[in-house]
Amino acid sequence: MSYNTFGKMFRFTTWGESHGPAIGCIVDGCPPNVEIKESDIQKDLNRRKPGQSKYTTQRKEDDKVQILSGVFEGKSTGTPIALIIYNKDQKSRDYETIKNKFRPGHADYTYFKKYGIRDYRGGGRQSARETASRVAAGAIAKKVLSKLLGKKFNIIGGVTQIGPVFYNPKNWSDKEIRRNPFFSPDKKVVPIYERYLLDIRKAGSSAGAMIELRAKGIPLGLGAPIYSKLDADIASALMSINAVKSVNIGAGSDVASLTGELNSDEMRIKKGKTKFKTNKAGGILGGISSGQDIVCSFAVKPTSSILNSRQTIDKKGKNTNISVRGRHDPCVGIRAVPIGEAMLACVLLDHYLMNKAQCGS
Amino acid sequence: MSYNTFGKMFRFTTWGESHGPAIGCIVDGCPPNVEIKESDIQKDLNRRKPGQSKYTTQRKEDDKVQILSGVFEGKSTGTPIALIIYNKDQKSRDYETIKNKFRPGHADYTYFKKYGIRDYRGGGRQSARETASRVAAGAIAKKVLSKLLGKKFNIIGGVTQIGPVFYNPKNWSDKEIRRNPFFSPDKKVVPIYERYLLDIRKAGSSAGAMIELRAKGIPLGLGAPIYSKLDADIASALMSINAVKSVNIGAGSDVASLTGELNSDEMRIKKGKTKFKTNKAGGILGGISSGQDIVCSFAVKPTSSILNSRQTIDKKGKNTNISVRGRHDPCVGIRAVPIGEAMLACVLLDHYLMNKAQCGS
Amino acid sequence: MSYNTFGKMFRFTTWGESHGPAIGCIVDGCPPNVEIKESDIQKDLNRRKPGQSKYTTQRKEDDKVQILSGVFEGKSTGTPIALIIYNKDQKSRDYETIKNKFRPGHADYTYFKKYGIRDYRGGGRQSARETASRVAAGAIAKKVLSKLLGKKFNIIGGVTQIGPVFYNPKNWSDKEIRRNPFFSPDKKVVPIYERYLLDIRKAGSSAGAMIELRAKGIPLGLGAPIYSKLDADIASALMSINAVKSVNIGAGSDVASLTGELNSDEMRIKKGKTKFKTNKAGGILGGISSGQDIVCSFAVKPTSSILNSRQTIDKKGKNTNISVRGRHDPCVGIRAVPIGEAMLACVLLDHYLMNKAQCGS
Amino acid sequence: MSYNTFGKMFRFTTWGESHGPAIGCIVDGCPPNVEIKESDIQKDLNRRKPGQSKYTTQRKEDDKVQILSGVFEGKSTGTPIALIIYNKDQKSRDYETIKNKFRPGHADYTYFKKYGIRDYRGGGRQSARETASRVAAGAIAKKVLSKLLGKKFNIIGGVTQIGPVFYNPKNWSDKEIRRNPFFSPDKKVVPIYERYLLDIRKAGSSAGAMIELRAKGIPLGLGAPIYSKLDADIASALMSINAVKSVNIGAGSDVASLTGELNSDEMRIKKGKTKFKTNKAGGILGGISSGQDIVCSFAVKPTSSILNSRQTIDKKGKNTNISVRGRHDPCVGIRAVPIGEAMLACVLLDHYLMNKAQCGS
Repeated sequence: MSYNTFGKMFRFTTWGESHGPAIGCIVDGCPPNVEIKESDIQKDLNRRKPGQSKYTTQRKEDDKVQILSGVFEGKSTGTPIALIIYNKDQKSRDYETIKNKFRPGHADYTYFKKYGIRDYRGGGRQSARETASRVAAGAIAKKVLSKLLGKKFNIIGGVTQIGPVFYNPKNWSDKEIRRNPFFSPDKKVVPIYERYLLDIRKAGSSAGAMIELRAKGIPLGLGAPIYSKLDADIASALMSINAVKSVNIGAGSDVASLTGELNSDEMRIKKGKTKFKTNKAGGILGGISSGQDIVCSFAVKPTSSILNSRQTIDKKGKNTNISVRGRHDPCVGIRAVPIGEAMLACVLLDHYLMNKAQCGS
Repeated sequence: MSYNTFGKMFRFTTWGESHGPAIGCIVDGCPPNVEIKESDIQKDLNRRKPGQSKYTTQRKEDDKVQILSGVFEGKSTGTPIALIIYNKDQKSRDYETIKNKFRPGHADYTYFKKYGIRDYRGGGRQSARETASRVAAGAIAKKVLSKLLGKKFNIIGGVTQIGPVFYNPKNWSDKEIRRNPFFSPDKKVVPIYERYLLDIRKAGSSAGAMIELRAKGIPLGLGAPIYSKLDADIASALMSINAVKSVNIGAGSDVASLTGELNSDEMRIKKGKTKFKTNKAGGILGGISSGQDIVCSFAVKPTSSILNSRQTIDKKGKNTNISVRGRHDPCVGIRAVPIGEAMLACVLLDHYLMNKAQCGS
Repeated sequence: MSYNTFGKMFRFTTWGESHGPAIGCIVDGCPPNVEIKESDIQKDLNRRKPGQSKYTTQRKEDDKVQILSGVFEGKSTGTPIALIIYNKDQKSRDYETIKNKFRPGHADYTYFKKYGIRDYRGGGRQSARETASRVAAGAIAKKVLSKLLGKKFNIIGGVTQIGPVFYNPKNWSDKEIRRNPFFSPDKKVVPIYERYLLDIRKAGSSAGAMIELRAKGIPLGLGAPIYSKLDADIASALMSINAVKSVNIGAGSDVASLTGELNSDEMRIKKGKTKFKTNKAGGILGGISSGQDIVCSFAVKPTSSILNSRQTIDKKGKNTNISVRGRHDPCVGIRAVPIGEAMLACVLLDHYLMNKAQCGS
Repeated sequence: MSYNTFGKMFRFTTWGESHGPAIGCIVDGCPPNVEIKESDIQKDLNRRKPGQSKYTTQRKEDDKVQILSGVFEGKSTGTPIALIIYNKDQKSRDYETIKNKFRPGHADYTYFKKYGIRDYRGGGRQSARETASRVAAGAIAKKVLSKLLGKKFNIIGGVTQIGPVFYNPKNWSDKEIRRNPFFSPDKKVVPIYERYLLDIRKAGSSAGAMIELRAKGIPLGLGAPIYSKLDADIASALMSINAVKSVNIGAGSDVASLTGELNSDEMRIKKGKTKFKTNKAGGILGGISSGQDIVCSFAVKPTSSILNSRQTIDKKGKNTNISVRGRHDPCVGIRAVPIGEAMLACVLLDHYLMNKAQCGS
């Protein structure tokens, strides 16, 4: 079982509810002697943190992480690394709206019916607040990968679509992503996103988004066929993120429209190294990394908690309507960027360790 | 680890190479006292079997399955069920083309580089022949689910796109799927598919496809948040199928374009039962089945082995060209339908058992 | 992998070092709607707590447990239960002795050589302090089992041997165990244990012990052959406790001396119920519980940290001697009783859930 | 779950019933490019094979193993290795005795009550025939370990006690083990074993045994604390063997009687290498191999199927007596030697790979 544990050799287990005293995770299987500081983790947490722009939720959380074990004199010891983030802004909330009514499109209904009990405060365990723990675990994975793979290793994600607005692939710029509040790699769509999101919020609605992730410097050989293929594990990792409904590897769903010639990434040897002419495969062939960049994307549905009134039912089985006020992200997809990066980092490290065991020299 | 094993509580482990003496699988965790006959499994294998129409490979395989253990006097005993399928048509093949050259878009290159050795005959372990074992395991999963869930339970898949040709969702007919060689739920596109595939084969090329799966009669409560969410496990299951590059749940990648109102599946009580007005979520909320139909889809890339010459490299690191003759499917997506159904059945049974343990009355 | 995670369906993951800020665990897979209070857990922790008699270590720890998640309004919600115990008495210790020298019989040497780094303070992760987390997880397991199995369920452990002193099986009394500081079920050996342990401490040495565990009210059917047999999982659980070197089920190593007749537990039907005339099997046949009491035992080696000087080596590879002063248990086996009970409770609940999934009605 | 699968990174899954058409296993996670021949496996199977001396069962089985996958041109490819052994001597057996009656001390009763169905023929899945698959998997593990560790690696097991007859530890001779039908390392007890077993068979009874295993050439660092300790995994592995009721590491249960000085294995540096003066720990400290020989032992109960009449019950819940005629081993412990060796080899390889991933250079 892997209820609240992700990964095989590099594993993390998350715990905590949105409005409980704290959330956190245990990272297990981290190799020893890797330098890990709270500030390394904090940096990534700050990118996911709520309340950073008017396009995300106004909930204020410090998201201050503490390392409670597994690091000694600044280095990992090979023992489990426990991370804790105390919840700050969880008081005086008006839970009456969601206490007894199920938000359509939300997990309120299924959690209640499955378990017969749920911590409804702020969504409890269903809340995207859990993803802070993922980002923390991912920050450790990145530190380890950087040590193992060197400077060429990098993972970056960008928002490529918000609602009806698409970016232009030709404009992708890693640097630009860090400059705007949408993680947009395309400078030109930033003002369009701004306008669209202010409008959608004003209209009491919300927007979906598409995110693309790119990992560079990944060696050939990661991925264990048949049922631990690298792409299968990426799919599971990304689909496990709240609100994700689609995962694509490389050309993704476009492959359905392609012919064999267009889809095959032709190969050449250049200066003794294998070069691919294209990367429709997203860097994965037969479930194994090919040495190309790993490219994948995922779609995030619009926030389910919206101001506009929707038909629903309540705990007693009566028909009712619901209109959710509060400080919700108009587009949860934006803050999904660092979460996606974190999950990808964890999968890649997991497979790096697996491959080292099985096929390492 | 789960190299060649799929599932948690209902598990199957596959083995075998395309041109070895046999392939097979062990199904472990099958509940006892379920009636299982070889003919139940054979029926599903026949749907996947090669050589059934001119639109699939002409390789002839009986795909005759034998049960070697775990079934006593016609019923499962709770012990592992070993299934074996002897390979028939694996002789006198001309392997010279693929022995030393890597087919672009194929796993030839990554398997060889990862393991330093590979059984190149017919693709060896990378071959889609492995999927026969999945279909066999899935047939057992369906038998168990039918016993557990009764007559309302059903899983069906259909091809909704081949190359540039899309089906019309309004025309979906379960019955039609069984009548044409494309598993098309829409009668009207059948002649278009026929023409397109004959043309693409004649042109020495191949086509991609999109497949949709629908499971009915699935109870609420399947799915174990956070990292064994039902949708995350479906994503992993489908992405592990050869040539799959995209997995969607419900509205899938379309959610990126939707607003909050359009995406929320409003709820009503009718005659004491919960009814959803739409099913954008594909029957899964927060990773837990909602009682609606489970709906998901996946994209299959065009066959990588094509007649048209492509640039590639060989084992010695020299540039070369490759043109693959032989009996390949012009569209591997077609035969992926029963495979997708099988994987979905296995995931659903796995989660049924998990939920029974954790939340069963 | 299961580095720091124990169990399959009822799982706990422990973290923390002896002299870090805190230790704790995450309990995952706990069924929902079970009443769980901190005081339930505290009660068991107090039984393991150091500093309770002059026969155990004088380290003072409150071992005050806090529940950080997974319990809402007094009941489990099915989400992970995070438990934390802050370390109190970890300051101003003289670590110089063990910082650079390896205690013979201790894990100092292997941890350092395996990981290339170790938190030597108080033994770090190797310290038996980790077992407090096990006791906490076990307390939750017992609460769940009590709800599931009713009043007839009970687990109790007793010390049956300390050094050369054996108890008399005829004198076993559950009540007596709670009355003396040795968890001795036999009142008569208590003064002998007292004398022996005071002597051994005065002599600068330490003593081994044997512990027996008995679980009553366990239904038939727990245990999943072949590699998750109930006895195999108990063996793994008990052997994982610090300093344990032997695990026995039922008659244990005595079976080597028995004949077939003496070892077979003959069966009779009495008032419609199956009765066994003896219980050499310890309640487990073919890896499956038989409905009899589960009986097992384990041997704990004498504390490795002793005052008497021993030959050893240091981090630099030089020969040296070591004499460990400090507040060590003269017989670590005594405090192993509640730990063994906890591990047995976790294994039994794990298998209860597994059996419910696979063979439940 | 790991119902019929053993291991984490080097895994094998067994299947098959005593009197079904065949038994076998899938070995998954075998590193690529290791030379593996059927004859390597056959050699070990022959050591376990029934019908080899008058002190073991007279059932005649060729135990002829076939490799069906995973080996190409004489070398492992990293894909699953499927092994099959067809059952020969399973016909014309008189099952009437055990069809409806439960043998006391046997798993007949628990299998039937747990699953509600069982293949009673020859014990079905409960039969020790399953252990042939373990020996086959172990033979592959040994081949891999020999390649990885070189000539100094060796695993050998010997019978150290049969019934009341103990060997003399001073007489242990590896060579002697291969010369007598009892796997006895002590030449002097061989005639005593002979006499004792002929007597016990004539008396219609059976005898228990103790087996010791020794592994040489095992590097420091194998074992993943806390819940995948090397000794915990050895305990699970050995306890999973049919009829085993006790597992000891190093001094085992004797540690309960020892003082701290006697139990500590003092250390010295000699010519730059760490030397231990004794090996009470059995080569494992804190769950991690120390570089010493791994030494462990296990007790096997007397065969439950005996000629002497025993009281029991039948499927209908009636009291009855049972006397089992047939070709049973008078002491199943003897043939447990190669099985124990195989399990130990699998555990060691599993941990070798795990350690390589986590702490490998």
